[in-house]
Amino acid sequence: MHFHVLTLFPEMILSGMNNSITKRAVEKDLIRIDAIDIRAYTADKKHNKVDDYPYGGGAGMVMGPQPVYDCVQDVKKDLPADTPVVYLNPQGRVFNQTIAQELAAHSDIIFLCGHYEGIDERALELCVTDHISVGDYVLTGGELPAMILMDCISRLVPGVLGNDTSADVESFHDNLLEYPQYTRPEEFMGMRVPDVLLSGHHLNIETWRRQQSIRRTLERRPDLLEQANLTPKEQKYLKSLLEEAENKENEEKS
Amino acid sequence: MHFHVLTLFPEMILSGMNNSITKRAVEKDLIRIDAIDIRAYTADKKHNKVDDYPYGGGAGMVMGPQPVYDCVQDVKKDLPADTPVVYLNPQGRVFNQTIAQELAAHSDIIFLCGHYEGIDERALELCVTDHISVGDYVLTGGELPAMILMDCISRLVPGVLGNDTSADVESFHDNLLEYPQYTRPEEFMGMRVPDVLLSGHHLNIETWRRQQSIRRTLERRPDLLEQANLTPKEQKYLKSLLEEAENKENEEKS
Repeated sequence: MHFHVLTLFPEMILSGMNNSITKRAVEKDLIRIDAIDIRAYTADKKHNKVDDYPYGGGAGMVMGPQPVYDCVQDVKKDLPADTPVVYLNPQGRVFNQTIAQELAAHSDIIFLCGHYEGIDERALELCVTDHISVGDYVLTGGELPAMILMDCISRLVPGVLGNDTSADVESFHDNLLEYPQYTRPEEFMGMRVPDVLLSGHHLNIETWRRQQSIRRTLERRPDLLEQANLTPKEQKYLKSLLEEAENKENEEKS
Repeated sequence: MHFHVLTLFPEMILSGMNNSITKRAVEKDLIRIDAIDIRAYTADKKHNKVDDYPYGGGAGMVMGPQPVYDCVQDVKKDLPADTPVVYLNPQGRVFNQTIAQELAAHSDIIFLCGHYEGIDERALELCVTDHISVGDYVLTGGELPAMILMDCISRLVPGVLGNDTSADVESFHDNLLEYPQYTRPEEFMGMRVPDVLLSGHHLNIETWRRQQSIRRTLERRPDLLEQANLTPKEQKYLKSLLEEAENKENEEKS
């Protein structure tokens, strides 16, 4: 997987990705990250300028169409024709694991990072294939969102995670949140690790963890449960949790 | 605003925030960012270890309760009693501008960044006041999410943005997406800036921009419109867009 990040802050991208799992993945040649400075493409070599005031007035500066357009064309020219050009901005599709999997199927991805008040609309119309948002909040630029996408997508590249099972047991697998985790010591500040985890009984552990995931998803993100992938036995468990909650509510009322 | 980031990768936090608007905000003493290395708090000075295998088996390593607990207690001891301790993880409330505003009201915020398979549940129960997720996707650690929150919250700190209006006209103001932006030149690759933006007629420009925001929100994120803050005239415009879409659909059917 080869990431091409077009940005005014290439150092931010390179230092941000030079840690932990992405660092090791680069060292093992499983992923490659190039950060390309959009400023190098400005035709205004005298002032080295890439932004200007918005037409129609308003606060802030807008990145002009020429440097962005020329930068994207230059990077694209040697890549497969279907390479996604992803513009990170709050107006895009909201990123999730399904989109991560779609993108992970490509050999190359171009990320276009806007900054300030964004990029001239014409450059976006000419260049961008995917508008993606990491969430409903306003940020200074597309750099942190691009790093989020690269982190998430890298984890789906074969060999990047230490073992093949790790990506399967995490949050959002089967559309459930992850179960609680415990490690040594057995007792901490008077709190003990749940007995079942010390039992060595694999089937009981697996059942307990799934039930914890279901309970937690119900408590914290009930919206996810509609799409959850549950066995008939687990559906029964969920039903019992819902009845329990209902009884409790009725008791409180009476 | 003083951010305290508890992490195994302090360098990643410091280099990632040392750019653009957050960098200037730090230089102007409007925000302060401390990155505290959780590893420095381990009682296992011989191996300098902070993680261990999960009880009950499974892939990956879990951060043990002792270093996390001691680190949080040490950082908290001089801060206001109501300082939020935010654990970044996919099981939390999904972050948005409203949560950003809630958090921006504090003088200090502690961000706890998990890594690997997360943190022992007991340390979380003992220390954490807020579970926050940046979105429904799986990442390697809480560092990028903490940077996302700091970027977003910093923009709400008075004085951080160049002028006081900028935060108000961006995406999600009135629950609408932002209108398209244009800057020089007037014509690029045969595409002209919309005439209204060159007219100098402020009221027409304002009306056009609001209509573009409404149209775009309808096309890309209709879910946001339920909570949108529209004038009666704008509600009428939205209604006409909906009718237009319906007519088009009926024409295609017949």
